[in-house]
Amino acid sequence: MTVCDLVDLGGRAKAAASIVASAPSGTRDRGLERAAEELERARDEILSANQGDIASAKEAGVAETTVDRLALNPGRVAGMAAGLRALAASPDLLGEVLDGWVRPNGLQIRRVRVPLGVVAVIYENRPNVTADAAGLCLRAGNVAFLRGSSAALRTNVVIAAAMRAAYREVGLPEDALILVEDPSRETVRDFLALDGVIDCLIPRGGPSLIAEVKQHCRVPYVIDGDGNCHVYVDESADLEMACAIIVNAKTQRPSVCNAAETLLVHRRVAAEFLKLVGPLLGGVELRGDEETRSILGDSKVASATVEDYAREFLDLTLAVKVVSDIDEAIAHIGRFGSGHTEAIVTSDLASARRFQSEVDAAAVVVNASTRFTDGEQFGFGAEIGISTQKLHARGPMGAASLTTYKYLVEGSGQVRP
Amino acid sequence: MTVCDLVDLGGRAKAAASIVASAPSGTRDRGLERAAEELERARDEILSANQGDIASAKEAGVAETTVDRLALNPGRVAGMAAGLRALAASPDLLGEVLDGWVRPNGLQIRRVRVPLGVVAVIYENRPNVTADAAGLCLRAGNVAFLRGSSAALRTNVVIAAAMRAAYREVGLPEDALILVEDPSRETVRDFLALDGVIDCLIPRGGPSLIAEVKQHCRVPYVIDGDGNCHVYVDESADLEMACAIIVNAKTQRPSVCNAAETLLVHRRVAAEFLKLVGPLLGGVELRGDEETRSILGDSKVASATVEDYAREFLDLTLAVKVVSDIDEAIAHIGRFGSGHTEAIVTSDLASARRFQSEVDAAAVVVNASTRFTDGEQFGFGAEIGISTQKLHARGPMGAASLTTYKYLVEGSGQVRP
Repeated sequence: MTVCDLVDLGGRAKAAASIVASAPSGTRDRGLERAAEELERARDEILSANQGDIASAKEAGVAETTVDRLALNPGRVAGMAAGLRALAASPDLLGEVLDGWVRPNGLQIRRVRVPLGVVAVIYENRPNVTADAAGLCLRAGNVAFLRGSSAALRTNVVIAAAMRAAYREVGLPEDALILVEDPSRETVRDFLALDGVIDCLIPRGGPSLIAEVKQHCRVPYVIDGDGNCHVYVDESADLEMACAIIVNAKTQRPSVCNAAETLLVHRRVAAEFLKLVGPLLGGVELRGDEETRSILGDSKVASATVEDYAREFLDLTLAVKVVSDIDEAIAHIGRFGSGHTEAIVTSDLASARRFQSEVDAAAVVVNASTRFTDGEQFGFGAEIGISTQKLHARGPMGAASLTTYKYLVEGSGQVRP
Repeated sequence: MTVCDLVDLGGRAKAAASIVASAPSGTRDRGLERAAEELERARDEILSANQGDIASAKEAGVAETTVDRLALNPGRVAGMAAGLRALAASPDLLGEVLDGWVRPNGLQIRRVRVPLGVVAVIYENRPNVTADAAGLCLRAGNVAFLRGSSAALRTNVVIAAAMRAAYREVGLPEDALILVEDPSRETVRDFLALDGVIDCLIPRGGPSLIAEVKQHCRVPYVIDGDGNCHVYVDESADLEMACAIIVNAKTQRPSVCNAAETLLVHRRVAAEFLKLVGPLLGGVELRGDEETRSILGDSKVASATVEDYAREFLDLTLAVKVVSDIDEAIAHIGRFGSGHTEAIVTSDLASARRFQSEVDAAAVVVNASTRFTDGEQFGFGAEIGISTQKLHARGPMGAASLTTYKYLVEGSGQVRP
């Protein structure tokens, strides 16, 4: 694909955006419902394309976890369809009057929710993101301009074709979903330069993608970033509860961004707690400071480096540190946290309040697992990502995050004196 | 100033941010009130520094309008102090619970308004922006990290010192306002690279600054951009009203972003309207299409180029175009508008609704001047800029635009099944 092709796709996305934006919610509802039916109808074709992607990935010798993320089965296709139906059934957001007032000169001002326009998503292997992201975009009246991974290309092409056919049938522009079919590394760079075309880019990917976006992106973006999440076990914690929370936060699904990466323990309870939790983290590789190592034994705990505290392991590895008080815990999180989710386990009201007030993250959790920070667990339904930025959207991003507003001002000839 | 110096200033800004964020609103109120007093107390010193800046600017032979923007007088200093007092009297936003709910598993979720952290502003000659921006930042619990123009440096230094002294007196960190004292061109580039320090950058300036930000900025930003604003006179317009609106929108203050740059006129009323408005735009240079020129006479109207329709004149020049219908008007605005403010003059309800629905801009105005799009006219009090972006904030940005939110999640040991 040449830059011209991409610019051409961008032009089509922009042209479709104003039509999608003004399509009534009923039409968009029907588009989502028909897309669900089309995915089910095309199920065998999708699974066959997916087999091709998986075979190529295995030939290329990619990691087993990557193959896992690529793989669809009948249940997962049904899940994609169910997701689109849930979106069709969810309330429409467009046109909502967010607020409104009248000025002393009689000017009437309303702030009304409108679509962003063209929403671009760069994502990795999971092909279900194609349907999920396109559905969320349509719910919010946007065009979805998608760039998946090369490994999932065959699958993505079939999914996109099915959904585009559904859109056409209900009278929506099929360009309400545009899939970039050349997912080469170079395309990403060109994509980031589509200033004036892309209204919002959501990069979902690892540190190298995020670094590239920060370095080269010329369009507005919201980062779905890393989660270097901490669990701090306070002096006053219910230690049984703390065990359950850190085990869940670390091991329930270690590969995701809201899994915990570092355990911080108050010195006064460190010996008791670490001896309690150690056996429960049997399959987890621990990397700790000297105090942790002396409590659990050097043979059980590797020595933690600064890099260990800074990184997102995304596997069954956990950094551990004993802290002298809540101040040190908050300072550690301030230094190493990525602004995703931070949790405290405590029975003390003042500690809970301080932690909630002083820790700067999208979600600050008291006495629960970090794993709850996602759109479904928060009750938003689908999500297009979890923002670790502070601008526009923070935390799990549902359909509302894919909207903006405009001011409608009505007068009777007012001019400014 | 070396990059290290700037990184050092950034570190100080970040260190102050958490203290400012947790300062009670009463302390921030007092900080704003004391800053107002300090500006009044330092009035002669400010004016004397300002004389120095003006003398240097004149020596350097800058334009008279630039000198105008630089110049302070006792009234303007009093205005800066009054602005800070108005902010002190305005309601605090921090801690507001934006929404909250309980999940089926008992998790309590609240979304609470919090400061952004370090807000950076790059701005041009007007030294009153130093006080206005710092005040708005403090109202919203942020550190103001300011980089004014070199032409206003002496004045800005005195204003910043006065406000910092006031902050110190009430127990706020004086680093709640940090002024970069080397406003060289190179500093801007380094400023844009302070990833991890600046939570939000607001560039206020001309197209070259905006282009540089889009090209090189690695920190989140909201653009205070150009206003290529249109007034469309519909077939059904009250032509007297239309005259008053375009005259006001073009001439009341032509150098600002919400002034009109292009007049679009429906063909059916073009002859009548242009002959009516022509004499009222006596001091305005008109650049029109062939129809406009044939109605008003080639000697009165220069020939408009595509560039004329694309640019923000910011002076007493107006592009004019006769359109065949509202569709052509909306399409012209879609092509040339900058997403700031677009106005229609019409008596027809359907035209008003279509224009409001289909024009994509921060403010869409029916039967009033474009000049109303600003924070004060909208009733927000002070503003830190007018966003022409769609993400985070759109249109006039008051203190609320300088905040974000975080989710506070409270449980009793919940883990994810």
